[in-house]
Amino acid sequence: MTKISKQVYKDRLHSLFDVMKTKNLDALIITHDDEYLSYELSDDCQRILYVCGFSGSAANLVIIKNINETKKNHEPLINKQTQEQYTELKACALFTDGRYLVQAKEQIDTDIYSIINRSELNECEFLIHKLPRQARVGIDLTTISYEQYLEFKKALKTAEIHLIGYDGSLVDLIWDDRPKAPCSAVQIYPDEYNGLPSLVKRQNLASSLRKNNIDATIISSPQNICWLLNIRGRDKASLPVINSRLVAYSNEAIEWYVDEERFNDDILDDLEEHYGHIDIFPPDRFDDLLERLNSSKCTVYVDPKATNAKIIGILLEGATKLIQGLDLCELPKAKKNYLEIAGMHKAHLKDGVAMCRFLAWLDDVTQVDNIVDLDSYIKKVEDIDEAKLSERAESFRKVEGDYIEPSFDTISAIGANAAMCHYNFKEINTPKKLGVDPIYLIDSGAHYLEGTTDITRTVLVGPNLDDEIKRMYTLVLKAHISLTTTIFPRGTSGLQLDAIARRPLWDYGFDYQHGTGHGVGHVLSVHEGPQGISTKYSQVPLEEGMVLSIEPGFYKENHYGIRLENLVVVEKCTMQGCKHMLCFVPLTAVPFDKRLIVREMLTTKEREWLNNYHSHVNSLVKSASSTLSDFEVNWLNQATAEI
Amino acid sequence: MTKISKQVYKDRLHSLFDVMKTKNLDALIITHDDEYLSYELSDDCQRILYVCGFSGSAANLVIIKNINETKKNHEPLINKQTQEQYTELKACALFTDGRYLVQAKEQIDTDIYSIINRSELNECEFLIHKLPRQARVGIDLTTISYEQYLEFKKALKTAEIHLIGYDGSLVDLIWDDRPKAPCSAVQIYPDEYNGLPSLVKRQNLASSLRKNNIDATIISSPQNICWLLNIRGRDKASLPVINSRLVAYSNEAIEWYVDEERFNDDILDDLEEHYGHIDIFPPDRFDDLLERLNSSKCTVYVDPKATNAKIIGILLEGATKLIQGLDLCELPKAKKNYLEIAGMHKAHLKDGVAMCRFLAWLDDVTQVDNIVDLDSYIKKVEDIDEAKLSERAESFRKVEGDYIEPSFDTISAIGANAAMCHYNFKEINTPKKLGVDPIYLIDSGAHYLEGTTDITRTVLVGPNLDDEIKRMYTLVLKAHISLTTTIFPRGTSGLQLDAIARRPLWDYGFDYQHGTGHGVGHVLSVHEGPQGISTKYSQVPLEEGMVLSIEPGFYKENHYGIRLENLVVVEKCTMQGCKHMLCFVPLTAVPFDKRLIVREMLTTKEREWLNNYHSHVNSLVKSASSTLSDFEVNWLNQATAEI
Repeated sequence: MTKISKQVYKDRLHSLFDVMKTKNLDALIITHDDEYLSYELSDDCQRILYVCGFSGSAANLVIIKNINETKKNHEPLINKQTQEQYTELKACALFTDGRYLVQAKEQIDTDIYSIINRSELNECEFLIHKLPRQARVGIDLTTISYEQYLEFKKALKTAEIHLIGYDGSLVDLIWDDRPKAPCSAVQIYPDEYNGLPSLVKRQNLASSLRKNNIDATIISSPQNICWLLNIRGRDKASLPVINSRLVAYSNEAIEWYVDEERFNDDILDDLEEHYGHIDIFPPDRFDDLLERLNSSKCTVYVDPKATNAKIIGILLEGATKLIQGLDLCELPKAKKNYLEIAGMHKAHLKDGVAMCRFLAWLDDVTQVDNIVDLDSYIKKVEDIDEAKLSERAESFRKVEGDYIEPSFDTISAIGANAAMCHYNFKEINTPKKLGVDPIYLIDSGAHYLEGTTDITRTVLVGPNLDDEIKRMYTLVLKAHISLTTTIFPRGTSGLQLDAIARRPLWDYGFDYQHGTGHGVGHVLSVHEGPQGISTKYSQVPLEEGMVLSIEPGFYKENHYGIRLENLVVVEKCTMQGCKHMLCFVPLTAVPFDKRLIVREMLTTKEREWLNNYHSHVNSLVKSASSTLSDFEVNWLNQATAEI
Repeated sequence: MTKISKQVYKDRLHSLFDVMKTKNLDALIITHDDEYLSYELSDDCQRILYVCGFSGSAANLVIIKNINETKKNHEPLINKQTQEQYTELKACALFTDGRYLVQAKEQIDTDIYSIINRSELNECEFLIHKLPRQARVGIDLTTISYEQYLEFKKALKTAEIHLIGYDGSLVDLIWDDRPKAPCSAVQIYPDEYNGLPSLVKRQNLASSLRKNNIDATIISSPQNICWLLNIRGRDKASLPVINSRLVAYSNEAIEWYVDEERFNDDILDDLEEHYGHIDIFPPDRFDDLLERLNSSKCTVYVDPKATNAKIIGILLEGATKLIQGLDLCELPKAKKNYLEIAGMHKAHLKDGVAMCRFLAWLDDVTQVDNIVDLDSYIKKVEDIDEAKLSERAESFRKVEGDYIEPSFDTISAIGANAAMCHYNFKEINTPKKLGVDPIYLIDSGAHYLEGTTDITRTVLVGPNLDDEIKRMYTLVLKAHISLTTTIFPRGTSGLQLDAIARRPLWDYGFDYQHGTGHGVGHVLSVHEGPQGISTKYSQVPLEEGMVLSIEPGFYKENHYGIRLENLVVVEKCTMQGCKHMLCFVPLTAVPFDKRLIVREMLTTKEREWLNNYHSHVNSLVKSASSTLSDFEVNWLNQATAEI
């Protein structure tokens, strides 16, 4: 990434001020996501990055023009604690979460912007604190969900501040060299991988529309459209989708608003054979559709979390009867079918082989047991930094068949860097090197044609390992095992299960400040709803076929970070007397580092689970690869030997 | 209870039909609660009991007039499973929950009424299924929360059915001999028990109004008014309150709408001294107040869950700016202060002594170890039925100082009756006798002047104890211990903790269909919000000073029921390294029945907890009562001996 000077960002901000002036705006909220409400952005939608240089995947930027003209007597901030923490708020502020506070500080000009943890102070509280009554705040209606827009609107209204919606981002007006929007080719995702023909998915969708007396539903999420049509694209790194919109009718008709350039000359017939007939329209005709729905007075279903405020705003103004709820593709997509699960297992076998090779290689270069003196050790490993480690892990994946791309930016973090949960060495000037730090955390994954992976391991890579790290590693492992072995009745949500993972840490007064697990897409987004496992927002019952991560952790700021993540699939429990219950079955097949375990802290049952898991990993990885070297086989045998 | 004939209920229903005809109503919803939205009802508010004979504490009755005139082609029911379960729906239906299905079947005329589990099919789904578009459904606005009213209104609107609100119940128009509303005397609840003078509570309330720019709040819950004013009354059995309403202003002024007859001649001065000056108005002036608020254009805070639809409806029509949220007394009331907690401990000591005496007496009369032959055993205990057992338990409480009354109807259940979680022998013609059943469940509690108790024990009382019962008892005990010993960070809700109790049962494929715990009031309602521990709805973070029950169970229909309940108080954890965490400290001091435990199923830690708890109970109960007989002391010693 070429470094852009502070002055350039200042100039861009002042250009924005000029635009705001013409619109008579006192402030502007710039949201992070694109008009499909994806947090994965193509270059043309990196608006916050363009304005201030912040590249994280979750943020809103708030800009106040002419702060001197704003009210003198500020409203007090919501509570005392917040007030003490944010004493000198700038006129502009970046709102993000705990994952990105450090990165934001490195990336943006803190003379201009306050960096604010959104869970402590939110955009509206900040605006109410800063602006007088009757102030005007602009927002782009196309890059915010209707639900979030309503929340902003309501909160600002309490202070008589007006939220003014625009059809498009004001940033685009000052962005001269804005990149073109991506326009990747539509690719058929064959039935042998997707497991359910598009026509069947569409019949099911239409039937659920009819059952609920709904005439049509607008599907705004590119992932859901790709799932429904069994296609994929390459519009975004790590998210193999086609940006587009779709309307499905109760009579099984489909209108797809997608650029025709995306269809290679000879693919249209193949597509028709693949997903049956659908009507294809240019994207700019989508507004006409909204008018048509409005004038036909039909009943339309939309997801207010997944549809932007412009679309729902137009529908609400017309004669359409609007019904809001979870996108009707979300649950069927989350509950993977037999072939998708088989594909996920295959992908995880490949990924297991790659990760085992990587870890064997890493052990070989570090040879931690043979460190004679620190200086010569540091010299020996000085060529290996976080970037190299990340590349090396990917190189082992790349040689596996049907590898597509990483499923997200690898988190490759040595020592204290691992204490930042979403650390990205690419955002930092100099990646850290192996040497003095005892442990290394790698959170990585890939899309293969058959499925998607996501795994975190924390391993021994250097000297200075102390009992504290081993104790904490063991507690995180206990947390992982505790949730993985839980069986639970149908109807149970991730929110209910989350504490079962945390309890081994809670018992000693520890915790981690992130969710325990997220849903995982099948060759789509590695973060997928509607299910999840966390302390909030994950009240969707877990169902058979859902894939989730289980990834408890522990982070000691400026010291080290530990996270242990497997993907699991929800299945019917096969234990005697429990066949009406559900359970988690691990997909990931990679050993946990036994050198970091305090054996006495594990219960007999926990050791049994670990030994069984390792023996399973051993046979799976051996069966999956006939090309393991003797060295790699030896490594695998000792890494999975009984504890 | 005198038995009322089916014909009388039929006549009452037809009188209601006549009233509905004059109002041009096709259907009527009769809600259970009174106009203060309490589920504890005085006799004059037992409207569902009056109309159909059902006496449970949670239900709505739906009555459809002239079903023959309703639509021929019914809408299909929501889902197939429901449709199969409810094939022959009557025109009238009682909607209740799992606790009351058996009781309802015993009490109401099933030729007229369908009995419906509300979680499977709700009132609106039923009405939409039965009624044509444009049908008119009546409802009393005074006996339904605004929130519930909105839900009904919205659901019926989707089928174009009109919900017509009335100011008062139509049942009252046909209820000739309706009892008078209770009018108990206002009693001062002294500061030595309540721990915080009313004036301080009111200053705190006014200050939080000012902080949020609110002019006034309407407090509709009699419990919250009694808490705020530090008074008590006797308007309802088990709920020592005064039915009334109150408005608190940001300038600390208070208007109390309460019958003057409630003030004994000489108490008014004492009251003024006790809670400072407040303006007292007759209850029928409350509507004037609403008009006054409306015309003054002030900002008013109300709780839509705790305020009836009539009140909020009037405010919404006026110029009042209405802000809705949890009643501002709820959290301060739930977080007990030091004196309240001390009082709860004192009450539990008395209750512990009473329960130990009761259990010692019960062991003495059953002498389970000495059963020679079954016939002579049955003869020996034949005088003892569920009613006698309940009376006997209360008799031991009554002799303790400052006993007021039971805190709820005792659940005294032998054998299979205990499988009905809220079994009430009073609703059944013949209470069950001791004899062939191995175990007995008693869930009971009391208000003492110092505090409120609620305890469930399941104990051995007869022959035929088998390994299954012991195994299940042990699993329930493990569930109880598991949650009781959990330490957790601030911000954690009961919803998050619930599964920690269930897991020992889940591990073997079992579960229980009720919440794990509820909040408990301090000489107010034994069921108190906003906190709770359950699979749903309990997302309020647990805070220091909150009192909760922990009561996992297991129920085998037609066989037996097991429940083990202690009350606990949330405190700062005192363990080393965990002082920033919270934990549960048991209030209840009564042994668990060791004869029902499979020792090998407990882990070392669980046995340690049980032995510590029992040793604690032993010393507490001995220290609390100097009048225990030698027999009782011996019983206590063996009941609390190490396992």
